[in-house]
Amino acid sequence: MAKKTEKQYKKRYYTRKKQTQNNTPSPAIRIIPLGGLSEIGKNMTVYECMGDMFIVDCGNSFPDSEMFGVDLVIPDFTYITENIDKIKGIVITHGHEDHIGSLPYLLREVNLPVYATQLTKGLIENKLIEHSLKSVVEINVIRPGDRIQMGCMTVVPIHVNHSIPDAVGLAIESPAGTVITTGDFKIDYTPPQGETTDLATFAEYGRKGVLAFLSDSTNAERHGSSASEKTVGRSFEQFFDKASGKRIIIATFSSNIYRIQQILDLAVRHGRKVAVSGRSMVNNIQMAFELGYLKAPETIMIEADKVKDYDPGQVVLLTTGSQGEPLSALSRMAGGTHRQFSIGRNDFIIISATPIPGNEKMVTKVVNGLLKLGAEVIYESMYDVHVSGHACQEELKLMLNLVKPQYFIPVHGEYKHLKRHAMLAEGAGIPEENIVIANIGEVLKIDDNGITVEETVTAGQVLVDGLGVGDVGSVVLRDRRHLSQDGLVVVVFTVDGCSGQLLSGPDIVSRGFVYVKESEALISEARLAAREVIEKYRAYDYQDWTVVKSKIRDRVSMSLYKKTKRSPMVLPIVMEV
Amino acid sequence: MAKKTEKQYKKRYYTRKKQTQNNTPSPAIRIIPLGGLSEIGKNMTVYECMGDMFIVDCGNSFPDSEMFGVDLVIPDFTYITENIDKIKGIVITHGHEDHIGSLPYLLREVNLPVYATQLTKGLIENKLIEHSLKSVVEINVIRPGDRIQMGCMTVVPIHVNHSIPDAVGLAIESPAGTVITTGDFKIDYTPPQGETTDLATFAEYGRKGVLAFLSDSTNAERHGSSASEKTVGRSFEQFFDKASGKRIIIATFSSNIYRIQQILDLAVRHGRKVAVSGRSMVNNIQMAFELGYLKAPETIMIEADKVKDYDPGQVVLLTTGSQGEPLSALSRMAGGTHRQFSIGRNDFIIISATPIPGNEKMVTKVVNGLLKLGAEVIYESMYDVHVSGHACQEELKLMLNLVKPQYFIPVHGEYKHLKRHAMLAEGAGIPEENIVIANIGEVLKIDDNGITVEETVTAGQVLVDGLGVGDVGSVVLRDRRHLSQDGLVVVVFTVDGCSGQLLSGPDIVSRGFVYVKESEALISEARLAAREVIEKYRAYDYQDWTVVKSKIRDRVSMSLYKKTKRSPMVLPIVMEV
Repeated sequence: MAKKTEKQYKKRYYTRKKQTQNNTPSPAIRIIPLGGLSEIGKNMTVYECMGDMFIVDCGNSFPDSEMFGVDLVIPDFTYITENIDKIKGIVITHGHEDHIGSLPYLLREVNLPVYATQLTKGLIENKLIEHSLKSVVEINVIRPGDRIQMGCMTVVPIHVNHSIPDAVGLAIESPAGTVITTGDFKIDYTPPQGETTDLATFAEYGRKGVLAFLSDSTNAERHGSSASEKTVGRSFEQFFDKASGKRIIIATFSSNIYRIQQILDLAVRHGRKVAVSGRSMVNNIQMAFELGYLKAPETIMIEADKVKDYDPGQVVLLTTGSQGEPLSALSRMAGGTHRQFSIGRNDFIIISATPIPGNEKMVTKVVNGLLKLGAEVIYESMYDVHVSGHACQEELKLMLNLVKPQYFIPVHGEYKHLKRHAMLAEGAGIPEENIVIANIGEVLKIDDNGITVEETVTAGQVLVDGLGVGDVGSVVLRDRRHLSQDGLVVVVFTVDGCSGQLLSGPDIVSRGFVYVKESEALISEARLAAREVIEKYRAYDYQDWTVVKSKIRDRVSMSLYKKTKRSPMVLPIVMEV
Repeated sequence: MAKKTEKQYKKRYYTRKKQTQNNTPSPAIRIIPLGGLSEIGKNMTVYECMGDMFIVDCGNSFPDSEMFGVDLVIPDFTYITENIDKIKGIVITHGHEDHIGSLPYLLREVNLPVYATQLTKGLIENKLIEHSLKSVVEINVIRPGDRIQMGCMTVVPIHVNHSIPDAVGLAIESPAGTVITTGDFKIDYTPPQGETTDLATFAEYGRKGVLAFLSDSTNAERHGSSASEKTVGRSFEQFFDKASGKRIIIATFSSNIYRIQQILDLAVRHGRKVAVSGRSMVNNIQMAFELGYLKAPETIMIEADKVKDYDPGQVVLLTTGSQGEPLSALSRMAGGTHRQFSIGRNDFIIISATPIPGNEKMVTKVVNGLLKLGAEVIYESMYDVHVSGHACQEELKLMLNLVKPQYFIPVHGEYKHLKRHAMLAEGAGIPEENIVIANIGEVLKIDDNGITVEETVTAGQVLVDGLGVGDVGSVVLRDRRHLSQDGLVVVVFTVDGCSGQLLSGPDIVSRGFVYVKESEALISEARLAAREVIEKYRAYDYQDWTVVKSKIRDRVSMSLYKKTKRSPMVLPIVMEV
């Protein structure tokens, strides 16, 4: 069936070419980013041509420091649900959270087939199980070179290197022309496993003509080229020698299967057993073994609770927590609160990651804790214990040169990254007017007339807090922020509903404002201020307490601010009897 | 008088040397760090010998992300106030906040003479004016080579390079031997103004014999040597050429007078006028001109509101906000809300600073904002627009080599920095047992028997929030944290004080929890749960509502958690009539 559709498309495609020659306008392709622009994470893009649509990626991002209490940020799916009849499916480029993390939230609203490579599928399934969605979702395995039909468009995965196996870029062949998106990528000429990014295929599309190119901007600020994952392996080799006789603990990203394989290989060579700690690490390693992405003699893996039966020099412990996450295994070890492992002078610990912006202080806290316990700790600012999974400037320029697109749209990054990538593209010969730094929700229409922002559709961020999706909005966040800064003062009093007479109170209850026992005078004064307001205003209109409440808020706030230069939230409550 | 005391000291000092030869124990010196160890900032150390004490530095640090609503962190002064009779004065090494920021808080409690170099004095005075303390504090100007008598101890300032002029290290000559502290320092062989760190004097003390050495660990993780401040000047030169015709805006630290002087010099050469924006920048530049630390033709400076009268290519604007501080001039320009300056394609902006850990995201936000407005923005990850003011590994090793101390105490830094510095010292030949990574509050006693932690005194952090000093403690912070995560639910009801009968309520008032209008069912359910508890338990003992309140808290929390997986603070309030 797919083949038939493809034939139809080819017919249309060639027809279009002819039409173009006849000066008949060719169809337009619309690219609608719903996330991943001017932000890190939450990558999601819709492609639309001749009434057919499909989605690339469905990631989440993490709350910034102002999003108090928020667990996760996902894209606004309004445009998807409004167009659900046109959407043929979701293609996923690789299994990182910023590309798959929002899938459960989308798939519980709409039922769409998902297309992903084998390992990516495994990671998505783990996620769907957590959300009790596995049985209802269809995930199709794709391989580089496959041709996936999405209505009039054909999607062809292209192998790329990244910090996770089975990552792909995508060529989208459409009646409007070919669009290429890299997904996240780097170019690793000496990958520990598998092939180098399939430069030949990118070049082939480039030679045939690429209408538009969307490329990963994460490292657009970094000069030169990214280092090979193999350099990490070489560093580890030295550390295994140096750590002789000590227990080796390595914290890294649980999805970096290449790195984990290199560690397993070293463990085999050094006669060490490998144990695993941390839920995501355990799950991912188990799955990677099952799918054949990890290989090691069966006897090498031991349970975490068996580590104590071995000499320190005989084990390697793989763990989560390389970002200093407060509840992770490594953080608990650093704080001396891990159930199974206590850290001491016999530990050699490698934190194999770079802190993501915002996490620096948490990682430092973990490093300090581990050092204080006497362990030797190797971390990012010291040696080559981590390499980035994203292309640097020389790689980006190479890719631009191979793909030679007519239009260029830098994606995946803060505005400063997109801007920098745009400058690289200009340097590589793409005219400024053919480069678009877009915003999420903008519909980029490309046709014979060029690239334009045709319209803007609903897009943005939806906050997930506990079970609530989207119920934490700006008012709730504003209140949380206010409460976090200076706490709360409740002014509560009871009145006679008929006469308006004050029956009880006003009482003052505060939380997060001052230590009440040491501030009795301050609280008394606030109570007095509130009482004065009640006495003065209830006479006017005790049917409607809105005015009195507002006056109490003002007077009590002022009274407290004068003495403390703080502005707690003042919450007047009237009880009518 | 000072000289006489010094003579007395010399007598004692030589006596002690003799005594040592006679196997009579020499006096001990006690070093008591009250801040600056295992933390960045809040530097403060007490030195004590034969009953005399003095203080070196009195800085503040900034709240970490868990200290909600806190403005400033200062040291605990208990040990100072308890020993006020013994303390001869406070010596300040330089004028950065982490060395002078807590002075107003200390000096409003105790009256002590302050000793500081000229520029440092100016910066302290600006601070004291803000706290209405200037008239009551005595600040004595000191110069490198001066001998300041602190009872039996003599303090000799030694010139060092740092990112602010007039920084000094200190030699503390005591009857127990000489202790040297570097303060913050680097070694700049080509300083834009003044001399290189006075290596000869450090070496001379080293040759004579140094008992203990306290050295700046901030950059102990960085290989090599710090770059000269002059490299920044050279970068700026290129940017002034490149920015021809555009308005140049430079954000940097207002205390880095060297850098500001280099900018003034370039402005003169390029025929540009200089305007200044941001309160601390205006104050510091004015003071530095008055004291002669900045020099420029009078006509070069213009008022900020005159910038609009010049062509963009004719002005340089110096501003604050290089750390992305949300209320700073640069942040407001980036957000398009600055009263005087709007940013556009004619602006060339240089952010001449490295984000302090924790500020990365704020700086990125400012960079993104400025780029979006069309400006060209040069920032840290691109060029040499900033150099550190702290010595790197090679400089630290050189200093250890010159000073050749018997005992080494790394200071100023997180634990990981102190540890790394300790390792460098070991590498430089100081025996491991002579190196102490101390904690604040530990009394390090050094005498003939070696270095020991004699006892621990009160030390820690005192939080400043608005006018309150120390009234925000762990309970208040815990509540603020709780409120920030999931908000608040107040359950309030009125009862008859005699019969315990429920007269009104329970009413539910929430803030920062959910958007109430969309969650009526949830709130109703909570109200029902509260009512059930009241009905059930008030019968038992309506004289004491503690039990009922606690039960309400549990039941309502559970009811809300089950539906939302959130745990707001539940605050039951009983009004008795």
